[in-house]
Amino acid sequence: MSNIYAVVLAGGKGERFWPKSRENKPKQLLALAGQNSMLQETLDRVEPLTSRERQWVVTSADLIEPIKQSGIREVRLIGEPVGRNTAPAIAVAAAEIFKEDPSGVMMVLPSDHHIGDLEMFRQVLLQGAELAEKDYLVTIGLKPDRPETGYGYIERGEVLPECRIPCFMVKSFREKPDMETARRFYRSGYFYWNGGIFIWKAAAILQSFKQHMPKLYGQLMEWQAQGGLSAGGEKFAEFYQAVEKISIDYGIMEKADQVAVIKGEFGWDDLGSWEALERFHPRDDRGNIKLGQVEMLDCQDNIVLCDEGLVAAVGVNDLVIVKSGNAVMVCPRAQVQEVRKLLEQVRANKDLKGYL
Amino acid sequence: MSNIYAVVLAGGKGERFWPKSRENKPKQLLALAGQNSMLQETLDRVEPLTSRERQWVVTSADLIEPIKQSGIREVRLIGEPVGRNTAPAIAVAAAEIFKEDPSGVMMVLPSDHHIGDLEMFRQVLLQGAELAEKDYLVTIGLKPDRPETGYGYIERGEVLPECRIPCFMVKSFREKPDMETARRFYRSGYFYWNGGIFIWKAAAILQSFKQHMPKLYGQLMEWQAQGGLSAGGEKFAEFYQAVEKISIDYGIMEKADQVAVIKGEFGWDDLGSWEALERFHPRDDRGNIKLGQVEMLDCQDNIVLCDEGLVAAVGVNDLVIVKSGNAVMVCPRAQVQEVRKLLEQVRANKDLKGYL
Repeated sequence: MSNIYAVVLAGGKGERFWPKSRENKPKQLLALAGQNSMLQETLDRVEPLTSRERQWVVTSADLIEPIKQSGIREVRLIGEPVGRNTAPAIAVAAAEIFKEDPSGVMMVLPSDHHIGDLEMFRQVLLQGAELAEKDYLVTIGLKPDRPETGYGYIERGEVLPECRIPCFMVKSFREKPDMETARRFYRSGYFYWNGGIFIWKAAAILQSFKQHMPKLYGQLMEWQAQGGLSAGGEKFAEFYQAVEKISIDYGIMEKADQVAVIKGEFGWDDLGSWEALERFHPRDDRGNIKLGQVEMLDCQDNIVLCDEGLVAAVGVNDLVIVKSGNAVMVCPRAQVQEVRKLLEQVRANKDLKGYL
Repeated sequence: MSNIYAVVLAGGKGERFWPKSRENKPKQLLALAGQNSMLQETLDRVEPLTSRERQWVVTSADLIEPIKQSGIREVRLIGEPVGRNTAPAIAVAAAEIFKEDPSGVMMVLPSDHHIGDLEMFRQVLLQGAELAEKDYLVTIGLKPDRPETGYGYIERGEVLPECRIPCFMVKSFREKPDMETARRFYRSGYFYWNGGIFIWKAAAILQSFKQHMPKLYGQLMEWQAQGGLSAGGEKFAEFYQAVEKISIDYGIMEKADQVAVIKGEFGWDDLGSWEALERFHPRDDRGNIKLGQVEMLDCQDNIVLCDEGLVAAVGVNDLVIVKSGNAVMVCPRAQVQEVRKLLEQVRANKDLKGYL
């Protein structure tokens, strides 16, 4: 069996967790659900399948130092000079892994998701690796537990034989649906959430780039001919700045033929907002989630996080209150999605750079 | 004309402004309405009438150092070993002033009120000093601009002749009324708020203590016979701990005969809660009061104070949000009176001593 490599995509900004998350400490570097940062937990989770020297982390160049300082050192770090979405990041990792190990299988993993059932998760990945050996491009379909409009969906097709875990051909990829469609998807049982987890041979995905994204493939090969990553940061920046910004879903998955989906049921959670914390932390008898030093009087159903010092409240309900570093954020739970807009406003004020 | 002394009562805790106010920085040491602390402004306000060496500040012993550190040094400071309400504090100051200047007139002033019209305020005090020379016990009655249930009232009686500002005999002192009574008081025009400002000869108030609070007077004279303040802190503590805790209103004013009230119209404000800040600071176009670094999106009618760092909020209305020192407090404007209860809760938790 081929060696398995992990390619963890850790370029996200996680702005929804501001001010707990900051530019130099995005969501993947926070310990939101466990003891360690989500990136660390992502790496630890697959260590039984792939040793540290076969773990790659693709992130923004600015985050290389913060990641090292968080204690993550033995892995291979690729720092993107600019964000170009998932397709170029995956292409770079695939080319480098292929160069090192032409028969290597790579798992692509988001860096900021939580997995409840680690054993089942690894079983699914191993099943994926077996399909990858047969030249499938494999994606994991997460079984929905609600009609969610915030994720893309994968429609499953015919069952694949000889699998320990239910595997299917992919019939279609669907973008984020409206609520009515989401309800239909949810009820049908044929649709899974697209959680951005992929498994394939480096050779197979390179072949797909060649077929479906020939321009990117050409740029990639030219850069590889110069030496790839070993040619240094300037060459990498030149190459990377020139490529198109595009997702792997849109660039490859929606077009490729040999695409399989494995049904994933392993307590997946993407911790998409503060709301998610209530799935990981106990409530008090008034329904409040209190992380850190928090004193409340007549308060109900709030989510309060206090990294340092004290947050005290009287008579408030359904709020998110976050005190982290030099900033405090207060927002109704129903409006946490608006924090991004608030952050744009902060970004627009040059006096507030120290709060980003 | 006799020398005028100021006796500023600065023992208050101002808990309603927590966490901006703390045990070692109560309301009178905060700059809530102006540039300087309210105590400093109280002293500066009467300096044209009485020089620094005739200004006395009676406060709790714990606050002597914080007051000195706030820059108030030239005045005479008396540190109460325990709180005994206003009557003992005034008795001590009266005895010490009388010893120094038997014909001295003393003005008793709260340390944490705001005065808008300084010239008018001083005219009223001078009028009071003139009445005090004639052995009246003088109080200032603040003309109500609303039917307030949070203050005591003074009912005026017959007009006193030969005054530049309307002066009356006091017919009665009334404790905090219910709303119906407050409305009646307000409409009648015969009732003023009792703001705790008094003017009298030291000799006259000592005479009143002798007549109406003979026990306290006896204890005071015994301590004075030992040397009073010059006998040192131990003697003072012994005397002070033994005296009854009682207000000057209840102990003297309600019983004395020769009591006059001057109508005070000089923009008085006791800054009783965070709500008061809106009378001193401009609102933004959504009705928010923002003091310090504050970023808001879709927020209305909030009062936000940020001493350091940033307070950011989305979609909240009618809240008070305070970030000061190591603590944050969030509370609906309608419930600011409850902050005291919250503070009791904080006090009950020994881990939270650093936040008091």
